[in-house]
Amino acid sequence: MLVEFSIVPVGAGSSIGDQLAKVLKIVDESGLPYKLNPMGTVIEGEWNEVMKVIRKCHNTIMKHNDRAITTISIDDRKGKPSRIEEKVKSIEKKLGKKLKK
Amino acid sequence: MLVEFSIVPVGAGSSIGDQLAKVLKIVDESGLPYKLNPMGTVIEGEWNEVMKVIRKCHNTIMKHNDRAITTISIDDRKGKPSRIEEKVKSIEKKLGKKLKK
Amino acid sequence: MLVEFSIVPVGAGSSIGDQLAKVLKIVDESGLPYKLNPMGTVIEGEWNEVMKVIRKCHNTIMKHNDRAITTISIDDRKGKPSRIEEKVKSIEKKLGKKLKK
Amino acid sequence: MLVEFSIVPVGAGSSIGDQLAKVLKIVDESGLPYKLNPMGTVIEGEWNEVMKVIRKCHNTIMKHNDRAITTISIDDRKGKPSRIEEKVKSIEKKLGKKLKK
Repeated sequence: MLVEFSIVPVGAGSSIGDQLAKVLKIVDESGLPYKLNPMGTVIEGEWNEVMKVIRKCHNTIMKHNDRAITTISIDDRKGKPSRIEEKVKSIEKKLGKKLKK
Repeated sequence: MLVEFSIVPVGAGSSIGDQLAKVLKIVDESGLPYKLNPMGTVIEGEWNEVMKVIRKCHNTIMKHNDRAITTISIDDRKGKPSRIEEKVKSIEKKLGKKLKK
Repeated sequence: MLVEFSIVPVGAGSSIGDQLAKVLKIVDESGLPYKLNPMGTVIEGEWNEVMKVIRKCHNTIMKHNDRAITTISIDDRKGKPSRIEEKVKSIEKKLGKKLKK
Repeated sequence: MLVEFSIVPVGAGSSIGDQLAKVLKIVDESGLPYKLNPMGTVIEGEWNEVMKVIRKCHNTIMKHNDRAITTISIDDRKGKPSRIEEKVKSIEKKLGKKLKK
């Protein structure tokens, strides 16, 4: 399944880049396929392996803050692997045009 | 922590009430504190116990559909239990007024 | 349409109740049907009237903070008014059981 | 501000690529900076110009379906333009490493 998540530390000042760098290090080292975008990170994998990574990221933020808001969106579709690449390509193919990514 | 979630079966017709009733049955029988609202269900508990319930709900929907979108929002705050009742009461106290719930 | 929204001021300290009280005052005075839950507020209305209220809430938070994350979920269904009450009742009817709200 | 949005037509079959292609055409022709990812589209602009585009996309989906779920996440930060490129670069700089995008 495809899973996008983002974590916002509450009460940490408005610049939270150092903390997000730690989170992305965890994602990058997980070995799961992922793509970072300006609003979140999309990971592809099974429920347990993806949730294990997100939980580790959430706990890392909670070590440094009293509060965090974590948002997770799951798109689960039977019999469709490698969707992290294919979803965008499929839309471009239908449109007959390259889109910004 | 407080966790709101909602599940949308994709490709199931626009009336999905029967499937949501199955999901709420799982939540109600979990024994965790919860509150149903018109857009989702809020559960209070630890990461593992809450995620176990949401995963069971998600899998129930996937038994009946080829695709589902599940959205999860987590508000985690150190040293604050029973927030499922207290958060709304605290806002009403600050406002000095009962709000619609 | 039904619209749930929540606003998180970033960099404001972990207790943001005073700011949320101001937001709820705006919602309560808008005259639109609404329901507050522990993770957000659900409003019912047309696109323009609902978005006007949410924008006013968002701008109020931005007056007091350098950064805010606002999340909006819309459930739009043709020919279904008064869903803010009916959605939950419909699930209870299907289950044959009152649920926690 | 940065705004990510996604629209799920409910009751439209599990393959909704043709409808998403129409949505992306609207975004691409809006002239606003955007980036498509496997779970949504991030747009950068002022509240009114971004919401006008999202409303047009939502209404296009509602022309073809009885129901749609639209999710919008806003990250608003004072005095920070061009964040659609800078946010990801800033995380890479802190990590000292290129990430997958």
